[in-house]
Formats: sequence, structure tokens, C-alpha cells
Amino acid sequence: MGVVTLVGGGPGDPGLVTVAGRDAIAAADVILTDRLVPQAALGWAKPDAEIIDVAKVPGGRSTDQGEINRLLVEHAKAGNDVVRFKGGDAFVFGRGGEELLACADAGIEARVIPGVSSATAVPAVAGIPVTQRGLTQAFTVVSGHVPPGHPDSTVDWAALARAGSTIVVLMGVRTLGAITDALVDGGLDPATPAAVVADGALPSQHVVRSDAAGIARAAEDARIRPPAVTVIGDVAALDLLGDA
Amino acid sequence: MGVVTLVGGGPGDPGLVTVAGRDAIAAADVILTDRLVPQAALGWAKPDAEIIDVAKVPGGRSTDQGEINRLLVEHAKAGNDVVRFKGGDAFVFGRGGEELLACADAGIEARVIPGVSSATAVPAVAGIPVTQRGLTQAFTVVSGHVPPGHPDSTVDWAALARAGSTIVVLMGVRTLGAITDALVDGGLDPATPAAVVADGALPSQHVVRSDAAGIARAAEDARIRPPAVTVIGDVAALDLLGDA
Repeated sequence: MGVVTLVGGGPGDPGLVTVAGRDAIAAADVILTDRLVPQAALGWAKPDAEIIDVAKVPGGRSTDQGEINRLLVEHAKAGNDVVRFKGGDAFVFGRGGEELLACADAGIEARVIPGVSSATAVPAVAGIPVTQRGLTQAFTVVSGHVPPGHPDSTVDWAALARAGSTIVVLMGVRTLGAITDALVDGGLDPATPAAVVADGALPSQHVVRSDAAGIARAAEDARIRPPAVTVIGDVAALDLLGDA
Repeated sequence: MGVVTLVGGGPGDPGLVTVAGRDAIAAADVILTDRLVPQAALGWAKPDAEIIDVAKVPGGRSTDQGEINRLLVEHAKAGNDVVRFKGGDAFVFGRGGEELLACADAGIEARVIPGVSSATAVPAVAGIPVTQRGLTQAFTVVSGHVPPGHPDSTVDWAALARAGSTIVVLMGVRTLGAITDALVDGGLDPATPAAVVADGALPSQHVVRSDAAGIARAAEDARIRPPAVTVIGDVAALDLLGDA
């Protein structure tokens, strides 16, 4: 049987794939790929590698997670070395855990090559450090897919508002207003700096800046579309690269 | 004048350096390197590149941050392309922000190549996802260098204890007891799963598991030494790679 390797593809620039990730892509017999991976990285694959696009476009075509798990197991059982190539990092809201469990249940050997997470890298390439000495010693990364009031939410937004960490919101373009409302209601200073970085690490990268109270409206006015990363905290006022 | 490039080196395995980071190392005239970078990656440098070790060993030899900033500026001003090669990611407690500010003050062009952060990658290679669908939609990364009660701390540990996020502690081997005490005092269930991953992504990697109340003692009993990453939260009970 083949081996399944989860490869984190980083935020979108093929240069932000790891050396080990590139080697795994180059060696794979079958690659299951996603919408937000750096597409140019698929050029590293063997000419005869089978590339299967399991993209999940919000509101569009969708491949069920169970079907992805089934494909991973099926191709590995057929003797293929399989790469599951994912945007960002497989374990930062990447459902990599579910895929590893599916492999374990089927007796398939699996390994993980961590990737550069958009949560830290997208702010970084826009000149915003998620931590900065003297400003903050913590950052919290939270999914906008499960916003305040969602029945599945495990997050106490009022507690998070007071925790003193930088807050980084992924997948939160549509829910940003609900999130910032909950944070301000929970005690976050509405004047806390905030920034949205859209298309981070891509040529089309752009940044919208405001404060916690105003960032959702500012992003809407700027017609920000996914993917985007929002940073809320004193670090969001920084612009360390000047021209980002 | 030369350009300064901050390159995140990831948790320790040279395969977890990014493709762009490797290219920057291979092109650099001068490399300022650190203790926790993957040392084998320095083999990618040009034969005539100057490699300067600015390692800060806890309790040992130390290079002042101001001196590092001065070296970056001095070598770039002399016309050299300079790589600042750092463990993990430059902006996750990496003081990259201070280095970029020093470059900006001196009129030196700088860029950032994000790295794989130990905060997510070290748990991942030990089979622990920092997020998992159905368990948690957030994770908080916090520095153990500024523990509860430290005058510089911006973290409200009682609020963090109730925020519902996975908690990942970096640089917290010595302060882990103070941190878990503060979290449990703040309302975190003392039975919350916890794991310490030492030497993550290195051949000597090992994992100690307990709960929030017991993990500091368990790590001490196992004589855990830095570097180590601690994960506190329901995900810490997972072991998705089976043999990690």
C-alpha cells in the first residue's frame, strides 16, 4: 500500500511551500489538490502523476469531505503514494485531522508536512507582525466560519475580547461584522487597530485598515472578497514594510 | 546598498524551510543565523558567504538585539544582500519587527519570507492538530517568557482560560507551572488534556502527556528541556499519527 502525505501549501505563493513539501509533490503518484493551493506548485509533479482537484468553492462546486477521505484511502490502497495538497497548514482549520483519522481507520500509513499558515504569514507579508515585543505576547487565531452565536461555537468571544492577545480571523469576510460586534460588546476597545489583508502573498494583495468598530464596514466598502485575513490588536497599526 | 531578508527557518528540520527561504540563503552574501535554525540549511549558502552566528543561548553567550540590528544595517550598507535566518517564524516571538524597524530607520530595503511556525508545526508532527472540527475553532499562541504576574504581560490569563481556544505555549518550559496554575485558577478545567512536545520535528522528538493540572510536573519528571511546545485543550488528547 502507498503512503498518504498531507502537505501544507502555504498562503498562495509557490515559494512558501516547504522544501519537503516540494519533494513530496515531486515524488507523488496521485495528488489531491485544493482551490487555495499555489497552482504553480503542481508543475513540480511527475509527468504521469494523477492530479485530482477536490476544490471547495464557497457557494459553488463542492467535494464532500467524506469523498476526499475515500479517495485518499482508495488511491493509497491501490499502491500509490498520495499527496493531499492543501492551502495554508493542514491543521489550521484545514480538516487534516479528519483525513488522518480516515487513513488510520483504513490502516494506511500517513505523515504530515506542516505548512506556512496564512494566519501568521499573510499579516507578515503585509508588514504586520502578530506579536511584537512590548505590545503583545500572544495571538489567537479564530475561524470566521463558526461566528458568534453559531450553535457549534466553542469560542467565548467576550473572554477572547479581554484576553489581551492579537486576534487573527481566518475565513471571516462574511462574518466580520458579527465578530467585531461580539468582541466590542465583550469589552474590546472599539478603537483597537484592525487590518484586513486580502489575497495575501499574491500579486493582487491589498490591505484595508481601520479600527475594531469600523473594519467590517471598511472591508465591505473596499469590496474585499475571500481569501482574506483580519488582524485586530495594537500590532495592526504597524506597517513594517512601508509599502505593503 | 544591499537588501535585508528575514527568513523563517521553521522548527528545526531543514525540509521545513520554504523554497523561497532556501533560494534567499543560496543568494545571500551575509547570513546572520541563530541557535534554533536548522543548521544543515546553512549548507545551501554560497561558498564565500559570510555566516555570523548571533545565537542567544539561555543563560549562556548572548548577542544583544541592538547589536544584531547594527550588524544587519552595517552589512547591507556595505552593499551585501543579507539574510537574517531565524528559527520558526520571524514574527512569532521572533523579534523580526524590531529588525525591520531598524532597517527602515537606516533606509535599508527589507523583505520577509514567512516561516513554518513551531506553534502549529511541532504539535502537527506529533499528531496533534491545533484545531479540529467539532472540538475547537480557535487556538491561542502565548509566550512563556512573559508568564502570569510578569510586569510586562499583556495577557489576561483568567480571560484566556475561558476563551475556549486551544492554548499553545512557546518558550514555556521553566514557567509552565505558573501558566497552568493561572489558567486553572482562571476557570480552566484542570482535567483538560495537555501535551508537551520536546525537540519537535527533530530526530530526538518526544511527547509527554497529562492534563492541565499535571502537565508541568510530568514535564519536570521527564526532564524536558527547551525547545518544547505545550498544547492545552481537547486536541491535546489526539494522537493522529499513532507512533509520534
